[in-house]
Amino acid sequence: MTRPVLVIGNRNYSSWSLRPWLLLRQFGVEFDEVVLALDTPEFAAQALRHSPTGKVPALRDGDLVLWDSLAICEYANERWLGGRGWPAELPRRALARAAAAEMHSGFAALRTQLPMNSRRRPDGYRWDAAAQRDIDRVQALWRSLRRGHGTGGDFLFGGFGIVDAMFAPVAIRFDGYGVALDDTAAAYLRALFALPALRQWRQAAGQESARVAATDALCRPG
Amino acid sequence: MTRPVLVIGNRNYSSWSLRPWLLLRQFGVEFDEVVLALDTPEFAAQALRHSPTGKVPALRDGDLVLWDSLAICEYANERWLGGRGWPAELPRRALARAAAAEMHSGFAALRTQLPMNSRRRPDGYRWDAAAQRDIDRVQALWRSLRRGHGTGGDFLFGGFGIVDAMFAPVAIRFDGYGVALDDTAAAYLRALFALPALRQWRQAAGQESARVAATDALCRPG
Repeated sequence: MTRPVLVIGNRNYSSWSLRPWLLLRQFGVEFDEVVLALDTPEFAAQALRHSPTGKVPALRDGDLVLWDSLAICEYANERWLGGRGWPAELPRRALARAAAAEMHSGFAALRTQLPMNSRRRPDGYRWDAAAQRDIDRVQALWRSLRRGHGTGGDFLFGGFGIVDAMFAPVAIRFDGYGVALDDTAAAYLRALFALPALRQWRQAAGQESARVAATDALCRPG
Repeated sequence: MTRPVLVIGNRNYSSWSLRPWLLLRQFGVEFDEVVLALDTPEFAAQALRHSPTGKVPALRDGDLVLWDSLAICEYANERWLGGRGWPAELPRRALARAAAAEMHSGFAALRTQLPMNSRRRPDGYRWDAAAQRDIDRVQALWRSLRRGHGTGGDFLFGGFGIVDAMFAPVAIRFDGYGVALDDTAAAYLRALFALPALRQWRQAAGQESARVAATDALCRPG
């Protein structure tokens, strides 16, 4: 049987790629990987060979091609995870999906002004009030989910799942930009960063080629 | 048993509200409805009573509150629809979710420049190249889904489902702004506009109060 193929962008910058990659890797799903350099003239043409939107991530499993991160996670949940990607009880599963969907469509100011860069360390950079409102909302959401559902593990609903994969790039942002964290967020970041798969991603991101590293400046806000 | 409550914005403008409303209504789910006028000073405070993000739509079912349109559709699918909201076969279900998710997070230029207004009729208004690219992509997606999966009905995967609810506001935009349609899109719009629930929504939108109608100008692009 052919292994599925996940097409991703550079580990350092492609926050959307990280989400399904982390889910698959952390749950032990075997897959091949194609990495496309986001910053090259060839990217658009290469990506269109893998994805109808010309964006990453994309998953190919046999004849099936999926081009959205959340849809890839839902598919993985049914195809390989036996449903373990979401909480088992319907109301908790629905809340996890609402949180994942809010991340999927929202937080535009946070995403624009604090782009993911795994190599970044906190400095004097500041963001505007809209980005701060996003940051506050993310932390309020995490508090409310942990308060109601955080038993039996250190993740938003206890054990690691899709909703945590969706927020992992936000954790990298909060860390790299030195965002002030409440206790819940600080503990949640520790739990995420202790995941073997996320450690592996961040280490590989730190080792991406010097040529890719030289584009860091392009991806810094501001 | 208490009926679920769907909190929505004005029918004329709230494209996100239309999506879960249409799904629930078309599948015959009984629910109560709270309509908040988007354009009033009270909106923010009222919406926060129903939704942690202060946005609509929101669904309340007993103690459970869901604040995202796609998550509401997924919940409805499990809670009331017995899975009929998505195609029954996993690969088709995965493609339907990818299309729904692309709508959920994408098409920013289309959404910004051609906001939904059920009462709008085509005029000389033009949009830019980015919005046209979104329009072209939507129609290419519809063609590809109908070509591969459109047997057994007039909707994207045959029978009406969540993915069609997600695109219904786009159909209203295409119609109201006079977007040039290929044959697939034209037939698809006819199928959507023939849905009893969507006819009911559009009729009610046309009858919203004169005070609300007076704000049409505010919601026109440009």
